[in-house]
Amino acid sequence: MKSFASDNYSGIHPNILNAIAEANQAHVSSYGNDPFTAKAEHLFKQQFGQDTEVLFVFNGTGANITALQCAVQSFHSILCAKTAHINVDECGALMKATGCQLHAIDTPDGKLTPELIAPFLSDLGNIHHTQPRVISITQCTEVGTVYSLNELTTLCRFAHQNGLYVHLDGARIANALAALGCSAKTGTVDCGVDIMSFGGTKNGLMIGEAVLIFNKDLVANAQFVRKQLAQLFSKMRFISAQFVALLENNLWLTMAAHSNAMAQLLTREVSTIPQVKITQPTNANGVFALIPPAIVEPLQKEFPFYLWNEQTCEARWMCSFDTTEEEIRIFVKLIKELCDGMKL
Amino acid sequence: MKSFASDNYSGIHPNILNAIAEANQAHVSSYGNDPFTAKAEHLFKQQFGQDTEVLFVFNGTGANITALQCAVQSFHSILCAKTAHINVDECGALMKATGCQLHAIDTPDGKLTPELIAPFLSDLGNIHHTQPRVISITQCTEVGTVYSLNELTTLCRFAHQNGLYVHLDGARIANALAALGCSAKTGTVDCGVDIMSFGGTKNGLMIGEAVLIFNKDLVANAQFVRKQLAQLFSKMRFISAQFVALLENNLWLTMAAHSNAMAQLLTREVSTIPQVKITQPTNANGVFALIPPAIVEPLQKEFPFYLWNEQTCEARWMCSFDTTEEEIRIFVKLIKELCDGMKL
Amino acid sequence: MKSFASDNYSGIHPNILNAIAEANQAHVSSYGNDPFTAKAEHLFKQQFGQDTEVLFVFNGTGANITALQCAVQSFHSILCAKTAHINVDECGALMKATGCQLHAIDTPDGKLTPELIAPFLSDLGNIHHTQPRVISITQCTEVGTVYSLNELTTLCRFAHQNGLYVHLDGARIANALAALGCSAKTGTVDCGVDIMSFGGTKNGLMIGEAVLIFNKDLVANAQFVRKQLAQLFSKMRFISAQFVALLENNLWLTMAAHSNAMAQLLTREVSTIPQVKITQPTNANGVFALIPPAIVEPLQKEFPFYLWNEQTCEARWMCSFDTTEEEIRIFVKLIKELCDGMKL
Amino acid sequence: MKSFASDNYSGIHPNILNAIAEANQAHVSSYGNDPFTAKAEHLFKQQFGQDTEVLFVFNGTGANITALQCAVQSFHSILCAKTAHINVDECGALMKATGCQLHAIDTPDGKLTPELIAPFLSDLGNIHHTQPRVISITQCTEVGTVYSLNELTTLCRFAHQNGLYVHLDGARIANALAALGCSAKTGTVDCGVDIMSFGGTKNGLMIGEAVLIFNKDLVANAQFVRKQLAQLFSKMRFISAQFVALLENNLWLTMAAHSNAMAQLLTREVSTIPQVKITQPTNANGVFALIPPAIVEPLQKEFPFYLWNEQTCEARWMCSFDTTEEEIRIFVKLIKELCDGMKL
Repeated sequence: MKSFASDNYSGIHPNILNAIAEANQAHVSSYGNDPFTAKAEHLFKQQFGQDTEVLFVFNGTGANITALQCAVQSFHSILCAKTAHINVDECGALMKATGCQLHAIDTPDGKLTPELIAPFLSDLGNIHHTQPRVISITQCTEVGTVYSLNELTTLCRFAHQNGLYVHLDGARIANALAALGCSAKTGTVDCGVDIMSFGGTKNGLMIGEAVLIFNKDLVANAQFVRKQLAQLFSKMRFISAQFVALLENNLWLTMAAHSNAMAQLLTREVSTIPQVKITQPTNANGVFALIPPAIVEPLQKEFPFYLWNEQTCEARWMCSFDTTEEEIRIFVKLIKELCDGMKL
Repeated sequence: MKSFASDNYSGIHPNILNAIAEANQAHVSSYGNDPFTAKAEHLFKQQFGQDTEVLFVFNGTGANITALQCAVQSFHSILCAKTAHINVDECGALMKATGCQLHAIDTPDGKLTPELIAPFLSDLGNIHHTQPRVISITQCTEVGTVYSLNELTTLCRFAHQNGLYVHLDGARIANALAALGCSAKTGTVDCGVDIMSFGGTKNGLMIGEAVLIFNKDLVANAQFVRKQLAQLFSKMRFISAQFVALLENNLWLTMAAHSNAMAQLLTREVSTIPQVKITQPTNANGVFALIPPAIVEPLQKEFPFYLWNEQTCEARWMCSFDTTEEEIRIFVKLIKELCDGMKL
Repeated sequence: MKSFASDNYSGIHPNILNAIAEANQAHVSSYGNDPFTAKAEHLFKQQFGQDTEVLFVFNGTGANITALQCAVQSFHSILCAKTAHINVDECGALMKATGCQLHAIDTPDGKLTPELIAPFLSDLGNIHHTQPRVISITQCTEVGTVYSLNELTTLCRFAHQNGLYVHLDGARIANALAALGCSAKTGTVDCGVDIMSFGGTKNGLMIGEAVLIFNKDLVANAQFVRKQLAQLFSKMRFISAQFVALLENNLWLTMAAHSNAMAQLLTREVSTIPQVKITQPTNANGVFALIPPAIVEPLQKEFPFYLWNEQTCEARWMCSFDTTEEEIRIFVKLIKELCDGMKL
Repeated sequence: MKSFASDNYSGIHPNILNAIAEANQAHVSSYGNDPFTAKAEHLFKQQFGQDTEVLFVFNGTGANITALQCAVQSFHSILCAKTAHINVDECGALMKATGCQLHAIDTPDGKLTPELIAPFLSDLGNIHHTQPRVISITQCTEVGTVYSLNELTTLCRFAHQNGLYVHLDGARIANALAALGCSAKTGTVDCGVDIMSFGGTKNGLMIGEAVLIFNKDLVANAQFVRKQLAQLFSKMRFISAQFVALLENNLWLTMAAHSNAMAQLLTREVSTIPQVKITQPTNANGVFALIPPAIVEPLQKEFPFYLWNEQTCEARWMCSFDTTEEEIRIFVKLIKELCDGMKL
């Protein structure tokens, strides 16, 4: 089966699988006190700056709650877009872990701006209200859009001016950076991001994500937070080794560039079908489009995918590191045929 | 490096690694909706009974907090031995996740008994006190001892008579079952265990543990609990496939029997050294012994291990699925030489 | 000082103060095991039905978190109007206490409807999403409106059909019932409310609120929940005795009817001032009106009040049990003079 | 009824009740922005030092969780005596509020010492263990003993040397200070206490406790913590006014000295009865004594009291501000008669 359902339907990149096998020799110290973890941390620092604190965790939810718990106490509030994974798709893990209030803000394109956030800052200092403390953004967003460097920098500056931190949920950060065409450091820490969740699972890893801390103020408790949130892996080498393979020779960005390119191709091809209407700019590896309700089921039977919005029949098609041009062409051909079939 | 530090220093059993590689084909539905997970669940039900509910999670702490959260509300208390992993080694993950009070009870051998628990039951019904709700035991215990079937049955019956559940932390349940020489079902659900954490990582898995629920009353919320505690894996097949390999042909029990045998051998051999004094019966794969302080450092340099008790200089030596007889002999020879060296 | 700032600026009704003094004799059992508490519970059951479970607590936030904690687990979500006290004014106490996600819904008038709630129910059963469990409404609402019996019944029926409970934040329930002109039972339990916070402090009590539980399913843990949330009073008689005085001879409804009447008078009077525009129907004891920015400060100097919306210069004027007609007339006269002064 | 059950069976001191009545005039700003609260804070600063931060709360549990939440994050642990109210009698409110692990330590007399605490400090810095952060002591203790100034100073110094804070649960601090014969400041902040719960309810108040913060590091979040834990009173003046009356002219110490004296008298008198054996030094207002099981019920019928230890038949007799010499004499006479009756 190939699919456009999610980048987590895909498998393990061969280099990553090799890295796991190669790390499987003899006994090694547990909990990260091993050479694989040291090397992976070294590679992260090369990409994001020497002051980066690196903590490997199990999954995206684990990365987000670990990162955000480092920045808040329970009387704080966290601001995010209504579409944010932490708001919609993590079964309230954030509220459970932090006890914080989450303000989910309506956006047209999944992106927060100073204007959208400003109304919440009147609460600062008022003891009856939770205190806004972190702006959590997703890059690229859940609707496939990418903050420009300028948008990101402006938002971070605004946050810092008001005493807030910026957390970046980078479940697909590789796709965003590949789209921006900038270095990892330029696209994150240099814009002012304080702490981020770095995604691996959706980009060819078998398992593993990382919390990257750029702001020194957030480092002190991080190791304890990760452990208490059940995100510390005993046989750490088997996650670290994957990250070594992912970061070496910029495999992560190469893979992301490929999945982005596949999404671009898909968008170009389906744009020629009159019954399909693209709804969001294809900045990264996701394509969002209104499609005729009648084609949903027969299309999903061949290529599984999700409806992003059942009311409007908006499909989400995700491309992965292993999506091929041929699959795109077969998929588009099928859409065309199904749409044409409707006319008959 | 080979070591006696922990069974989590060991690597991946070749069958398990193969299983990961074989699962790495094409796209597969995420979050457990895949044939690997179905097969792994099927194998668990074969071993533990058809009514077993199976939830895969990332690590032991994740298994324990998921299992216990299914059984408690925050005004409950949980009772465990003072040596229990949930009390000592999980950085308070349980209190964070559940908000419960943990009563840690002194034991001579890591095992709880009705007599040790009875004093806490006078609190039942008194609104000023947290309400005892779960007895959490470890099998085999953190000090290498194993509850007999009779001890386990008696404890579970006592729990149920008082309206409490029994949770079994089975990070090393394979070693306990191998030691007891009984079936999985006989050694757990048939004794009255309500819910358990089933360990994989310490028995040859790359990554993965499972929560097994035997008591129907605890099933309803389990899926939500796991998700909210950040223990739901998106690319689930890569944990499930490992469990398939682990359970097939009873590999898990074969491996555990081997590590138990290595521990027995180690105990027999060091028992002949007058300066070494075994402190706990070697029921499973851990050996606990008082050793001369002077040999600790030179011995650890060759074979890493932990001191269980620094005050008394009590060493903990863990054997793994990949520990060899030759390693044991070299290790014991070194102990002898170091001890002899002291006399000189 | 007299004010229109809040009904919590007012003092203690003389009958209530007398009741405290009269309860101050000799020693009495603590924690509610006393005749005053028994009598207060008896009076509540007379008004709300014999099956009502009554728990006295300290304040409105305490009542809300106790009531809601009885109905949820942490993976649930709670739905409320964006204006709800639990969303805006309790510093996140609810998230801290329950770990739940709060969905705050935009409303024109502070009232929820089945239509507003329906979109959130598509999440039911999906393990990635928090599970809607309670609809929390405020009666009368924070913007002074009152649900009709029909609106309330419809909402409760909708909730129950979807497996949700209804919690009523009745910090000002007396004002709502006085406005509806119905009995306590008719206006709450008979409409289908499952559990409520009954307000005392804003209606002439020195201190004290109550949680009333109508749905038997929510009773089992309530005593433990209240205690664990630090809402159990040791010298309980001194809260209970106040409630006895409040409920006897329907003092609570008489007081509420008076403050409602004062609000009606105020609305009638200011409606004649062209520069003042009433923004919400005056259903209970609060008056909401747009006023000229220039009169805010000089008016507040004489009669403190709060701006509900600083952007639009919408004032909130609350009437209390001790607000007098004369005060209303002096206040309105001052508004007129200030508005006229602007014209000069 | 008069009793020796608890100091929370007693009523309101007449001065305190008067203060409530006198505060009941006109409208007053809510949430502590009023002259009564200002005056009460002023009086506390006079007694405990100008740098004292004062927060009024509802009850003892509320004071303890507010104080401790100011000092911890969830991965910390709190150390207390096994007899501590936070461990035994607050239904796990502390774990619920903080998510922390509580280490309850066996003591002979309810008092902690550096020696008892030292074993827990080996965990500092180890990410697998909760991090000891606060030593919480009770003064006077739940078994009626009082830390000497020297004991207290030694413990605080030890705590600070190891990076821990000291919290003092002062539900009966007045009795301790009256027993020590020192000023409030000398007996608390000058010994090194960082933060404390100051008891009012058990010493003649109708309702109210205070959190006093001496260590500036713990002040920043305190207002938010109190609010989020549902301990902020809207009609604050009615608690503050009570504290004004309590602190003025040292009424609090006079009352405590009286109840201490009554306990001393009781101890002296019962010591002459051969069947009664005092078990703890009577340092404050509690008397602990082994009594014949046969006299418990008939004695409780006349004068309610609690058995501290049902196994050993150890009674706890608490004296209050309103306990009279005559009551003591009648009570002791009854004990004698009952004991004599046994002999017959």
